[in-house]
Amino acid sequence: MSESTPVSILREDGGGFPAPAELRSGPMAIVLFTDFGSNDLYVGQVEAQLDRYAPGVRVIHLLHEVPPFNIRAAAHLLAALVRGLGRGHVYLGVVDPGVGTARAAVVLRADGSWYVGPDNGLFAVIAARAASTSIWRIRGVPPGASPSFHGRDIFAPMAAAVATDDFPNENVEPTAELAVRAGPDDLAEVIYVDHFGNCFTGIRAQGASRAGWIRAAGREIPHARVFAEVPPGAPLWYENSSGLVEIAIDQGHAARELGLAVGTAVAWR
Amino acid sequence: MSESTPVSILREDGGGFPAPAELRSGPMAIVLFTDFGSNDLYVGQVEAQLDRYAPGVRVIHLLHEVPPFNIRAAAHLLAALVRGLGRGHVYLGVVDPGVGTARAAVVLRADGSWYVGPDNGLFAVIAARAASTSIWRIRGVPPGASPSFHGRDIFAPMAAAVATDDFPNENVEPTAELAVRAGPDDLAEVIYVDHFGNCFTGIRAQGASRAGWIRAAGREIPHARVFAEVPPGAPLWYENSSGLVEIAIDQGHAARELGLAVGTAVAWR
Amino acid sequence: MSESTPVSILREDGGGFPAPAELRSGPMAIVLFTDFGSNDLYVGQVEAQLDRYAPGVRVIHLLHEVPPFNIRAAAHLLAALVRGLGRGHVYLGVVDPGVGTARAAVVLRADGSWYVGPDNGLFAVIAARAASTSIWRIRGVPPGASPSFHGRDIFAPMAAAVATDDFPNENVEPTAELAVRAGPDDLAEVIYVDHFGNCFTGIRAQGASRAGWIRAAGREIPHARVFAEVPPGAPLWYENSSGLVEIAIDQGHAARELGLAVGTAVAWR
Repeated sequence: MSESTPVSILREDGGGFPAPAELRSGPMAIVLFTDFGSNDLYVGQVEAQLDRYAPGVRVIHLLHEVPPFNIRAAAHLLAALVRGLGRGHVYLGVVDPGVGTARAAVVLRADGSWYVGPDNGLFAVIAARAASTSIWRIRGVPPGASPSFHGRDIFAPMAAAVATDDFPNENVEPTAELAVRAGPDDLAEVIYVDHFGNCFTGIRAQGASRAGWIRAAGREIPHARVFAEVPPGAPLWYENSSGLVEIAIDQGHAARELGLAVGTAVAWR
Repeated sequence: MSESTPVSILREDGGGFPAPAELRSGPMAIVLFTDFGSNDLYVGQVEAQLDRYAPGVRVIHLLHEVPPFNIRAAAHLLAALVRGLGRGHVYLGVVDPGVGTARAAVVLRADGSWYVGPDNGLFAVIAARAASTSIWRIRGVPPGASPSFHGRDIFAPMAAAVATDDFPNENVEPTAELAVRAGPDDLAEVIYVDHFGNCFTGIRAQGASRAGWIRAAGREIPHARVFAEVPPGAPLWYENSSGLVEIAIDQGHAARELGLAVGTAVAWR
Repeated sequence: MSESTPVSILREDGGGFPAPAELRSGPMAIVLFTDFGSNDLYVGQVEAQLDRYAPGVRVIHLLHEVPPFNIRAAAHLLAALVRGLGRGHVYLGVVDPGVGTARAAVVLRADGSWYVGPDNGLFAVIAARAASTSIWRIRGVPPGASPSFHGRDIFAPMAAAVATDDFPNENVEPTAELAVRAGPDDLAEVIYVDHFGNCFTGIRAQGASRAGWIRAAGREIPHARVFAEVPPGAPLWYENSSGLVEIAIDQGHAARELGLAVGTAVAWR
């Protein structure tokens, strides 16, 4: 390819782009956040159920590879992601090792968005950070519901009810508190590893000093604004697109090269 | 996290949830069931084609990782899955090792749902179990159709025609029988392994005695209603969310640990 | 299964199928072509953004596993794929190793379709082959945009603006040329390996002699129209469903068995 000198045409002042707050919010969507596996046969069944109960409502697949069994990491990841997605959506969240046992099920309204799923801590960080919340327990199991697939048989119909304004309904009762609660603080651990090997931590970057170094797996890692600011192969931390401290290696796979995984503790030096 | 005592708020009587049969059925969707690979570039081309011929019709991705080349397993898996998805959809099914050869192509109407795809046995179990069927052969190949991608060039336009009520049309002719037929009986084999390693068999659980043990790969496996009823690491069979006998290991990977794969024979002890 | 003699019911004259050119083109869709990873958490964020700025517009996931860092291969792959998808769509393309640096960003209109993404060569083949083009540089970064996720924060809002007829707008300025250009010629390399192991080359098959052999990784490979024309295990090249010369092995994995990967040079013997 021939290449002319590239010109930076992106103005840092934002040009004429509207600020997100000025945006129309659009119709309510149902946003899925699960450990069902993106390629398996569970997600499609949930979508078919949503289509049946809430025809015409958009379904957005945010993530189906949530680290399984790690509810605490999932709770912090979801709390970070929803900040960027706009208000008013219905989140159907399923990380549910206790499905089929007596764990409670919940509908949470927090700061204008809705959350439907198991009451096992998955929404606890969102609730703890919210300025305002309302909480309902789900009671009743639809006839014929599978004990192993509440995502399809209980949470999807309930999320559809919220999205179609059939809420509150007779299948819920108000409650004052989540059954499993958490504090609003950050989680100083790796909470997600993306397919490039970049490691999300549960530490919010806003307010963190750019002079700070992150310690993880025996390494001390400096800040950079973008990958291009460090030499190839060098580790860095930066504020990622979800507002979290993320550990990465320019042109490398940080998780593998630094020995990090979901649950690895991190700390400021 | 702090945890209060969880309360079982799910009433087994169903609370106020509507029974599935009482549900409005919603608009017709096109449901995809293929071996195209979820992450490859084929599915999006099919969806673009559907969008062109049936704009506005919802497309649901049920499964794109159907075990390739195993039409018999796929036929039993599809028959189990459609039971839970509601009537009136158009299923576009493609497991088609014979694409480009002289195998026939078909539109099947069975018990109120529609099936479009190769006439190679993929829909044979559904047809054999249906109370009523109508069958049409697809004749003609659209100009410029690829000999290797009938899913995009023949089946997608035909599924779209059904979904938009442009059916029957001049590209089909009624026929009395599928070209490749099967009986209605269960298939005593592993027909699908999910990403947790759980093994679907082709045996319908309804009517099976919970006292029965399943024999597979030299092991004898007892029933449990849910995983939590067996010790961690112990194998169990249970009625899965699609109504099939499924072999699993609590907190384990049954396929790997028991040596099971699609095609492994199973039997009642 | 019992099997009656299959009958070829597909008429090569096309039967009554409408030719693609006669089709209604349907509403404009936004088609995604990225290296974000199909199963990661980036695609859903882009879709949520599109839903916010262009509610109701269909989003089609063409490919999210574009070979990373190989812009040239991606450019040829995209050029081949769009030929079969119909006119009038908005392609949001992201293969963007330079995100966060001074590389330019662009909106291209070429032969009735639209392309939004980095101006790094990704759309250069399409532009070079188009009968007519119009080009706009994107200027301005929305307030709060992440320096590492222009797909979500710049390209998605711009693609939505095009799809909703809010274009050209004050965030673009016309320009005469792409910053990174390419010629219209084929690319004699492997440009994509699908999940079956079949190897797309960047050579268009139209006009290629079926008597020609393709040389790749020290092997010479003959033409066949379909897989069934060669013995199992034998390599072949054929015109694939995107109009490209593709190297495959009947019932085999050509990439692994022939030692091919994205970037491997190929040539006519």
